[in-house]
Amino acid sequence: MPQLYHHPLCPHSRFVRLALGEYGVEVELIEERVHERRREFLMLDPAGRTPVLVEDNGMVIPGAGPIAEWLDETLGERLGDHRLLPASPVARVEVRRLMSWFNDKFFDEVTNWLVTEKVYKRFTATEIGGGGPDMDLLRAARANVRYHLRYISYLESTRRWLAGDKMTYSDLAAAAHLSCVDFLGDAPWDEEEPAKSWYQRLKSRPSFRPLLADRVPGVATNPIYAAVDF
Amino acid sequence: MPQLYHHPLCPHSRFVRLALGEYGVEVELIEERVHERRREFLMLDPAGRTPVLVEDNGMVIPGAGPIAEWLDETLGERLGDHRLLPASPVARVEVRRLMSWFNDKFFDEVTNWLVTEKVYKRFTATEIGGGGPDMDLLRAARANVRYHLRYISYLESTRRWLAGDKMTYSDLAAAAHLSCVDFLGDAPWDEEEPAKSWYQRLKSRPSFRPLLADRVPGVATNPIYAAVDF
Repeated sequence: MPQLYHHPLCPHSRFVRLALGEYGVEVELIEERVHERRREFLMLDPAGRTPVLVEDNGMVIPGAGPIAEWLDETLGERLGDHRLLPASPVARVEVRRLMSWFNDKFFDEVTNWLVTEKVYKRFTATEIGGGGPDMDLLRAARANVRYHLRYISYLESTRRWLAGDKMTYSDLAAAAHLSCVDFLGDAPWDEEEPAKSWYQRLKSRPSFRPLLADRVPGVATNPIYAAVDF
Repeated sequence: MPQLYHHPLCPHSRFVRLALGEYGVEVELIEERVHERRREFLMLDPAGRTPVLVEDNGMVIPGAGPIAEWLDETLGERLGDHRLLPASPVARVEVRRLMSWFNDKFFDEVTNWLVTEKVYKRFTATEIGGGGPDMDLLRAARANVRYHLRYISYLESTRRWLAGDKMTYSDLAAAAHLSCVDFLGDAPWDEEEPAKSWYQRLKSRPSFRPLLADRVPGVATNPIYAAVDF
């Protein structure tokens, strides 16, 4: 079985888990705490970041972007008309634009701050940056998440899914990041009904179920996190 | 003629300029100062980041990753055996891994700090983050660049180009970032001969020439920046 090195609150790992679920590929999940810089993990991928996919033949594919492209190139056609990265180059531009929007921009402005400040810093020694959360960063992240939810609502106002009339990697990337925000209780769903109903649709997919069962020892989970009807 | 919104010291723009040069595509360069958040630019790409490519038919392709994939999908086969993103999915993984290494990791650990602290902050009002450079960040960036040059030397010890025996997007991404570092005089080439000779090979390509003519008003250019023999 392929292996996926991941962390339950790493949004890029979650994106890949959702994609694998949609492709129907089962993987063995191996939890990796990247800040521990474990030697064996760095030998797999010197960049030392999750996610890393290891195929049955030992081939290593590191990083959400390269993994998404690899899965499309090797399994994409299998999904036919529901391909997560559509076949036409023009349609691929919009899907990749929004993948980058969430995996890069949303990560920089929201997920990275929330997860680092609320979770990773608690498990890091004070001498190397651990400690209590920086409240200014949390406030900025919570302000930014509103702007991104509005953007999702805006996209939803003209399209059924974020990049068009079919679900694509764009939706999985956005939902992966928002699921981390929601885990920590920082997604103000009631302010953005269209974004909420889009997220509900994704949350009810079988590929989402394993993510909803995730728990992190020592970190409280938002009570509505696992509820499909919230 | 297609248009490229770029900034002379934006490494992701430089990567795309090198790629366009290798494809033999001429573009009109439009300098964009993204921190000014110009309305017309945000209408083109709400993410508000350079580079943004606008094709003759008005199609907008934002971001280095989506642009690189778009160019490969529409022009890649033209380069035959010298395709910048090789045809085989297995080879593509290594090229995309190293593209991400430089466009994401190197950017986070080196280029973003150097360019922000030494250039962008000088042109930004103090109330919104402008001012003198943060010397701790500059020191960290300069320490990190040594580690990355060693990694390039290591890759060069077993391969002719970074991802294998042909020049690919990996080389262009790495060279684009290092060209910004070199512009600012922060690349200690003499410590890493293999990395230096790899960069010399890239620097002597016709696609590189326009980058070597770049100047930024008010920012001193490293005297050896434009020299192919340095």
